[in-house]
Amino acid sequence: MKKITSPAAFIGINGDGVISFGSGQPDLPPPKNIFTHLEAPRLFKYGLIQGEENLREALAKEYPQARPQDFVVTNGASEALDLAFRAIYELHGNVGVLVCRPYYYSYPPIIELAGLTPVYTDLIEGKIDLQDFEKKVRGVKAVLINSPSNPTGRVEELQTLRAIEKLCAKRGIYIVSDEVYKDLIYGRENYLIKGKNVITINSFSKTYSMCGLRIGYLWSRDRQLVDKVVDIKVHTSMNTNLLGQEMALHAMHTPRAFIKKQRAIWQERRDILYGGLISLGFDLWKPEGAFYVLPRIKNSNRVVSELYHKHKVIVYDGEWFGAPGRIRLSYALDVEKIKEGLARIKKYIRGKEAWLK
Amino acid sequence: MKKITSPAAFIGINGDGVISFGSGQPDLPPPKNIFTHLEAPRLFKYGLIQGEENLREALAKEYPQARPQDFVVTNGASEALDLAFRAIYELHGNVGVLVCRPYYYSYPPIIELAGLTPVYTDLIEGKIDLQDFEKKVRGVKAVLINSPSNPTGRVEELQTLRAIEKLCAKRGIYIVSDEVYKDLIYGRENYLIKGKNVITINSFSKTYSMCGLRIGYLWSRDRQLVDKVVDIKVHTSMNTNLLGQEMALHAMHTPRAFIKKQRAIWQERRDILYGGLISLGFDLWKPEGAFYVLPRIKNSNRVVSELYHKHKVIVYDGEWFGAPGRIRLSYALDVEKIKEGLARIKKYIRGKEAWLK
Repeated sequence: MKKITSPAAFIGINGDGVISFGSGQPDLPPPKNIFTHLEAPRLFKYGLIQGEENLREALAKEYPQARPQDFVVTNGASEALDLAFRAIYELHGNVGVLVCRPYYYSYPPIIELAGLTPVYTDLIEGKIDLQDFEKKVRGVKAVLINSPSNPTGRVEELQTLRAIEKLCAKRGIYIVSDEVYKDLIYGRENYLIKGKNVITINSFSKTYSMCGLRIGYLWSRDRQLVDKVVDIKVHTSMNTNLLGQEMALHAMHTPRAFIKKQRAIWQERRDILYGGLISLGFDLWKPEGAFYVLPRIKNSNRVVSELYHKHKVIVYDGEWFGAPGRIRLSYALDVEKIKEGLARIKKYIRGKEAWLK
Repeated sequence: MKKITSPAAFIGINGDGVISFGSGQPDLPPPKNIFTHLEAPRLFKYGLIQGEENLREALAKEYPQARPQDFVVTNGASEALDLAFRAIYELHGNVGVLVCRPYYYSYPPIIELAGLTPVYTDLIEGKIDLQDFEKKVRGVKAVLINSPSNPTGRVEELQTLRAIEKLCAKRGIYIVSDEVYKDLIYGRENYLIKGKNVITINSFSKTYSMCGLRIGYLWSRDRQLVDKVVDIKVHTSMNTNLLGQEMALHAMHTPRAFIKKQRAIWQERRDILYGGLISLGFDLWKPEGAFYVLPRIKNSNRVVSELYHKHKVIVYDGEWFGAPGRIRLSYALDVEKIKEGLARIKKYIRGKEAWLK
């Protein structure tokens, strides 16, 4: 069997009896109110590089001390991250960026493509080890925080986030805070990381099930940074697609109940997948946000390959996320499929119990 | 009066009696058939990083010896250029890129942001000086060709393009051929630059008046290059927005008559603006494609500022395009406005005839 070396191998694979715990995209539909006035001629002209004013005004109302001019609307959170790191490179040259490991698989390449150098701090039980963090932060110009986290499903403690805020503000270190799962959090409300040195990254993809439209944004009170991001984007992609921005604006008028209802669906799925894996003997952290679990299993690459080829179950290799000896399962699929997937995994691991230790 | 230093100062300025020869966007509406099936759930999921298969299949039919897997659909031609140059940097490090001057104002920053070094060859009467080109090409790994050209409105001679094809193929030099104005050409059909070392850049923005949707693409028979572009895009922006791709696919079914009709409109506008400027005493090249003219005028920065502040006419400073002592006028506006703009320019240049020499 050919070794499967990246999630790219699974993108677009669907149907034909396959149960996919792979992709991190909601299977729920977007709000219905987004499909209005899509033929307006202005949507087909060039728009402002920074993003449409009405969308930035609406966003500014959602953040404390925020002004529309502090936002840049981007092609998903991916481009927001890419532009933020390219801007840091343009302003400071090749500096270090502290990344928590396990990490979202795009983090190291995005940082390296921008010309920067990732430095790693290993999580303990999926959470930041403040002692190691404090030690390593001395050598970097930026840190990248992702709470709730993909792939761990963990949410950082409030005191950890506040300590990081303080530490980085004092040392003039950027905090790039990827909060795309801010509305998919079960235990408490999301804690927005704050400060003049903070670059908040977010997206409409997860909250409103609009991944395909690629509407994300960054927000920062650091004027120099925001200006540099716009300077770059004018050349590298110009305005973000206006139709998507229009739909994102409509989506923001969605009643809060839509999000609450979705959260209840996610929580039910989490409980079934988490409980199911525990009862199969897996060792894993309880997810507190996002929609992923990262259980331990030996020979993870072989597991990924065999589960797919022999049982038509897609899971991702933890190695792709800096977590060898683990697999990542997304629970962005309906309860029936989760149960069927668990049944197939149960069959597969029979006789391999030692791999779960 | 504050010095106006880039086109960014004019973006989004409209109405209130302003006549804008600034922005390079068609004012014509997009084809009506693009507004269908926009609520399909698949458009809200993640799509293939390379672009939707149906769109790439349709594109492959438009190019000789092309296969769907040789295309990458991007956030406009801008991202196609950005990814192409980033891929060249990843494959070859900091190498030289030969750029014709005057150039589209984003070319030097896109090349530099990717970590590459622009090298310039000056056009003669808006056309490539093959002797200088041959000399300078020896030191570079890629050349960037833009025919029809923004900002010159010129179309390169067939024998020039064929000589460049041969020269670059022999030396293993990439030709990045930005042909976004391929359907806005008056004298002859567009000549597609061909070869295994060619990266063709194109877009739906100009042909179908869909600038705001940001759907562009690159096409290359160089497998290594295309794979590298996809490798980068998976991290930096993921799939291009699916709604725009769906509309682009519909647009491709637009009868050829739509494009022919548009071309007739452009040609009429060109004749009025070109003829008008000639009769005012301007020295300029006759545009053969795209929708720009680049007349000579001394004190171009002062002209840009005074025309805007005193006469509400937007023109761009040639300096932004590597052509100091010239201004760029787009004729992407209706005939009445072109005539009104010409009348205002006539008033402004009275007594400044010496500036036109």
